[in-house]
Amino acid sequence: MSKRFIDLRSDTVTQPTEAMRKAMFKAMVGDDVYGDDPTINELEKYAAELVGMEAALFVPSGTFGNQLALFTHCRRGEEVILGEDCHIVAHEVGAAAVIAGVQLRALPTERGRMNLEKIRSTIRTEDIHFPETSLICVENAYSNGAVVDLDYMRAISNIAKEANLKVHIDGARLFNAASFLKVEAKEITKYCDSVMFCLSKGLCAPVGSMLAGSQEFIDKARKKRKLMGGGLRQAGFLAAAGLIALKDMTKRLSEDHGNAVYLADELDKIEGIKVDRDNLDINMVFFTIDNIEDISDKLVKYFNDSDIKINGQEGGKLRFVTHYWISKEDIDYVINTLKNFLNN
Amino acid sequence: MSKRFIDLRSDTVTQPTEAMRKAMFKAMVGDDVYGDDPTINELEKYAAELVGMEAALFVPSGTFGNQLALFTHCRRGEEVILGEDCHIVAHEVGAAAVIAGVQLRALPTERGRMNLEKIRSTIRTEDIHFPETSLICVENAYSNGAVVDLDYMRAISNIAKEANLKVHIDGARLFNAASFLKVEAKEITKYCDSVMFCLSKGLCAPVGSMLAGSQEFIDKARKKRKLMGGGLRQAGFLAAAGLIALKDMTKRLSEDHGNAVYLADELDKIEGIKVDRDNLDINMVFFTIDNIEDISDKLVKYFNDSDIKINGQEGGKLRFVTHYWISKEDIDYVINTLKNFLNN
Amino acid sequence: MSKRFIDLRSDTVTQPTEAMRKAMFKAMVGDDVYGDDPTINELEKYAAELVGMEAALFVPSGTFGNQLALFTHCRRGEEVILGEDCHIVAHEVGAAAVIAGVQLRALPTERGRMNLEKIRSTIRTEDIHFPETSLICVENAYSNGAVVDLDYMRAISNIAKEANLKVHIDGARLFNAASFLKVEAKEITKYCDSVMFCLSKGLCAPVGSMLAGSQEFIDKARKKRKLMGGGLRQAGFLAAAGLIALKDMTKRLSEDHGNAVYLADELDKIEGIKVDRDNLDINMVFFTIDNIEDISDKLVKYFNDSDIKINGQEGGKLRFVTHYWISKEDIDYVINTLKNFLNN
Amino acid sequence: MSKRFIDLRSDTVTQPTEAMRKAMFKAMVGDDVYGDDPTINELEKYAAELVGMEAALFVPSGTFGNQLALFTHCRRGEEVILGEDCHIVAHEVGAAAVIAGVQLRALPTERGRMNLEKIRSTIRTEDIHFPETSLICVENAYSNGAVVDLDYMRAISNIAKEANLKVHIDGARLFNAASFLKVEAKEITKYCDSVMFCLSKGLCAPVGSMLAGSQEFIDKARKKRKLMGGGLRQAGFLAAAGLIALKDMTKRLSEDHGNAVYLADELDKIEGIKVDRDNLDINMVFFTIDNIEDISDKLVKYFNDSDIKINGQEGGKLRFVTHYWISKEDIDYVINTLKNFLNN
Repeated sequence: MSKRFIDLRSDTVTQPTEAMRKAMFKAMVGDDVYGDDPTINELEKYAAELVGMEAALFVPSGTFGNQLALFTHCRRGEEVILGEDCHIVAHEVGAAAVIAGVQLRALPTERGRMNLEKIRSTIRTEDIHFPETSLICVENAYSNGAVVDLDYMRAISNIAKEANLKVHIDGARLFNAASFLKVEAKEITKYCDSVMFCLSKGLCAPVGSMLAGSQEFIDKARKKRKLMGGGLRQAGFLAAAGLIALKDMTKRLSEDHGNAVYLADELDKIEGIKVDRDNLDINMVFFTIDNIEDISDKLVKYFNDSDIKINGQEGGKLRFVTHYWISKEDIDYVINTLKNFLNN
Repeated sequence: MSKRFIDLRSDTVTQPTEAMRKAMFKAMVGDDVYGDDPTINELEKYAAELVGMEAALFVPSGTFGNQLALFTHCRRGEEVILGEDCHIVAHEVGAAAVIAGVQLRALPTERGRMNLEKIRSTIRTEDIHFPETSLICVENAYSNGAVVDLDYMRAISNIAKEANLKVHIDGARLFNAASFLKVEAKEITKYCDSVMFCLSKGLCAPVGSMLAGSQEFIDKARKKRKLMGGGLRQAGFLAAAGLIALKDMTKRLSEDHGNAVYLADELDKIEGIKVDRDNLDINMVFFTIDNIEDISDKLVKYFNDSDIKINGQEGGKLRFVTHYWISKEDIDYVINTLKNFLNN
Repeated sequence: MSKRFIDLRSDTVTQPTEAMRKAMFKAMVGDDVYGDDPTINELEKYAAELVGMEAALFVPSGTFGNQLALFTHCRRGEEVILGEDCHIVAHEVGAAAVIAGVQLRALPTERGRMNLEKIRSTIRTEDIHFPETSLICVENAYSNGAVVDLDYMRAISNIAKEANLKVHIDGARLFNAASFLKVEAKEITKYCDSVMFCLSKGLCAPVGSMLAGSQEFIDKARKKRKLMGGGLRQAGFLAAAGLIALKDMTKRLSEDHGNAVYLADELDKIEGIKVDRDNLDINMVFFTIDNIEDISDKLVKYFNDSDIKINGQEGGKLRFVTHYWISKEDIDYVINTLKNFLNN
Repeated sequence: MSKRFIDLRSDTVTQPTEAMRKAMFKAMVGDDVYGDDPTINELEKYAAELVGMEAALFVPSGTFGNQLALFTHCRRGEEVILGEDCHIVAHEVGAAAVIAGVQLRALPTERGRMNLEKIRSTIRTEDIHFPETSLICVENAYSNGAVVDLDYMRAISNIAKEANLKVHIDGARLFNAASFLKVEAKEITKYCDSVMFCLSKGLCAPVGSMLAGSQEFIDKARKKRKLMGGGLRQAGFLAAAGLIALKDMTKRLSEDHGNAVYLADELDKIEGIKVDRDNLDINMVFFTIDNIEDISDKLVKYFNDSDIKINGQEGGKLRFVTHYWISKEDIDYVINTLKNFLNN
């Protein structure tokens, strides 16, 4: 894939920066299964501190990290409470029923939030017919573009403590959430027992995510990572890029958010378009176009011919995602292209 | 447990009838793992015909039959669509995540019905992030006391066929549903690929349920029943009672339903009590009493001292269940006892 | 299946005795999921005492009991050490990989015994590549007809204690083993943490097995039994027969063993037949006939026409099983029939 | 870890070559979940051709690839026949019981070969007590240092075809085997349905393995890779090194093998040392030293102080592994160091 495309499909498409390529070239590496990779060790230490946890573990992907968290926190047959449209339910290929072997109790969400009373009533009491509830998962930022605030995080933490449950945060875009909330990431993660966050996506590292938690939790997870086939060898190359992702790229996410708002504003000016302003907290713009079901395929093709990559509509909505490689000028070009399309 | 108690906790408490005891005493039996048990063979043939299926299989319990159905229909990691408060989700100890290894997609229900449009939108399309949907489960009668009508069953069947899914009915109280709808059971089960129904509960057999479906499905299920530890030896004793349950006891369930309505009417006359008339289709009466959370424990004890067994409130509701061993006179005594309790 | 057949296929084919039928007819029963079945409660208490354990649980079958033991003792991915031809490996349909999710480390056996040094070296040390070993299973009596002696049991127990493992006995024919060793069953089971033993087979009860262990273990197992679909309702009918099995039928197994030796002696007198005298401890006689592969099918048919049921050869061997319903006269008839067959 | 150590612990410790670092620096990458990574695409195409398969898939590790193969070939509860000391049984943390949910039937091996007759008799026939056998796994080169020849591979393939089973090769060191046999890798893999081979180890790429098979098999595996958390984003960096591994590094493995023989010869000259010449086919030298159990820890420390890394003894044996970063001079230094140690 050459660089001339403006790629709005997702922030997962982000190319690494030149600094990342250089860091990878020079990376000191070793066999991480032996604990010998200095760059992985540095990354794991840095990542843990960044989210205020005792320890952290490099994993190949966000899905890997989430599933490893379920597998480490829960015994088979236990229940996990989470949002019905969150990534673990919707986009992880049913893995929770295969690897951790847990039953997902998916609750409706609004702006990424489950109803707290509903959570309480979903937690199982002791009864021979009932599985045990062992975990609550919160996604933050939520993949529908909303950020969950600290009050909600605290409330979840309190419910969990009362019922002796653990809390896991799917923080694939944790730093987008922190940036939106104008807090350090650890202000969010202090309300959980474990957190997964991605080095790729908006942070531009090519591969990898981190799972962080207590030392005991990470020790267990390290062995289960091996079981799941995630014990890598000279992974320090990926860690070298990951360190830049965490140290530098976390600081610029507000740019992407600003660009998303700019894009949203420009879209809203176009007749027949309506932006979902309720879920515009991070780098994602969800919007509708009149008759989008009918014209979606044509639009994707027209954009592609104009060197812009987008996904087709899903459930009547389009999603454009901003990131490091999308400039304000790119957005102007996108808007113009869209206007041209709609005027034809 | 002696007979002097009026037991309203559930219809699972039903003692077998004298005719059942006699049939068990005289039962011809053999080793069913070898296919040698004549009474089991007769029961499986009779049960299959009763629900219009090619074949049927005796299983130790309703939970066993439901889980065996999931295990036989689905591959691990696939998704099953079903009601959020149905027995498989709520009362089977998380087994679906352990044995079949499937992901449950639980939808809200109203009188036992999921929204049809919601079902359609929950069925997965092809995408590398998505598990495959393979099954829809319908519970009928629903354990909240409602019966799902034939139009709804047909609609589910049509949705399933369009999407190439299977339909399983959890018919723990299938004959209660048929009795309420005034149809033969096979009029309900013609809309499904498999059905589980219990010989115990309102039908009074001591142990056992049936799983019915196509010959191919039952052949597969028979082997998986062995894997799950459900291959019994001289099970014909249980089948002897089961045959009476299916032949005779299915015909008298309207009595229990009539008694439930009578009980409901009498309860509604008492001040401070409100019966849930929307879910009064079968032998279960759900109702509220003012301040029930506060007085539930006392009520259970008072009733027990009066030789009546009931369960305490759940979610602010009480449930009284009628069955073969509850007469109209018993109900009068229950009503009087309740009035005495409330007047003290 | 009528009684005129002499059934040598297995002791699983045993019909219950008249006393069992009568006890079942009169059995006091209740809903065992509520803990209300007095006969089940009596059986569980009696069974626990019989094997010197704190508690016991009624389960539908031996396979169910073994798999429930694995599921209760082990976490998923752990290793279980056991004999390569034992029932759990050979005849439980691969269930251990489905329900408990454990890895079986099957070792060669001789007369039901694994090499003790080999067991020691198979127990895992701590290493990121290794699963944890958590259980050793011993089958006694072994299904090849051998009984494992107390010295071996003690040695297994010592190895397990040193390595902090649990020991489970698959005692499907535990009382045959005790009878052969001329000890009480609890002399065998004092070397294990849990034991499963069958009420059917040589003991003639129609359905059911017991799992016994510590109170804590049985409490956990009770809930997992529900998950696996083994929570029965008025199971007291089966318990009534089971009590007779344990109280009376355990005492007469030496008769079956005597008959097996008598059968073996008579077989050995026939030219071309060789009995496996190394595995003749209980009620099973393994033997070879010259050219058995060629004549096995004919033999089965000839015997069937003579009202004798046998299984065909497996691995070049025939197995005849004695039990309550096989008298010395039956054996004489079997021997004569076999001679007639071989002389034709 | 700095470069001054001579690291004989394993070939997994190999640093990438300078050419690999440069290729990674310049790699064209894209989002591989979208199929957009040109370097991954090139690697998958090249790898498939190299082993004569229709398609191939990049996976994070050898364990991942093996487990993905089991998961894709087998349904839960099925049986897999393989060597008792192979990597899948011995070093993958029990994953086969967790992810694929299969029962491993581990057979004794000699020089990496299971007895063919034993394989045949282990394949299950149809019986309600038996799981189905679905797969045979062969490890080649075997991790004990032996290479399995083409005649044996062909024999396995024939057995599998007769019984309608699949064959998977764990080819973590496939190119070592090919080099030893002096054939192209595809001469080995033509006897299997799928093969996993590593880009790391002797081939020096930092991270990653390939799973190859039919297009249909790889299509299924690609989705299951996502389920297992192995869907990476800009994985082209790893692929860039992987391409060099496959194109260039495969050709030089005979050097490592020659060095292993040289090391073996020199070791054998030392009194008290005995090399296992039966398992000296590739880059591994297994040998014993008198009283090694007693002196192992001291030896490891002495070597470490002399800038040589080795693992301690396992089962009375030491293993030294040669690779790209071990020169003949390094071996001389190792031999001298060992002599010095033994003379003190």
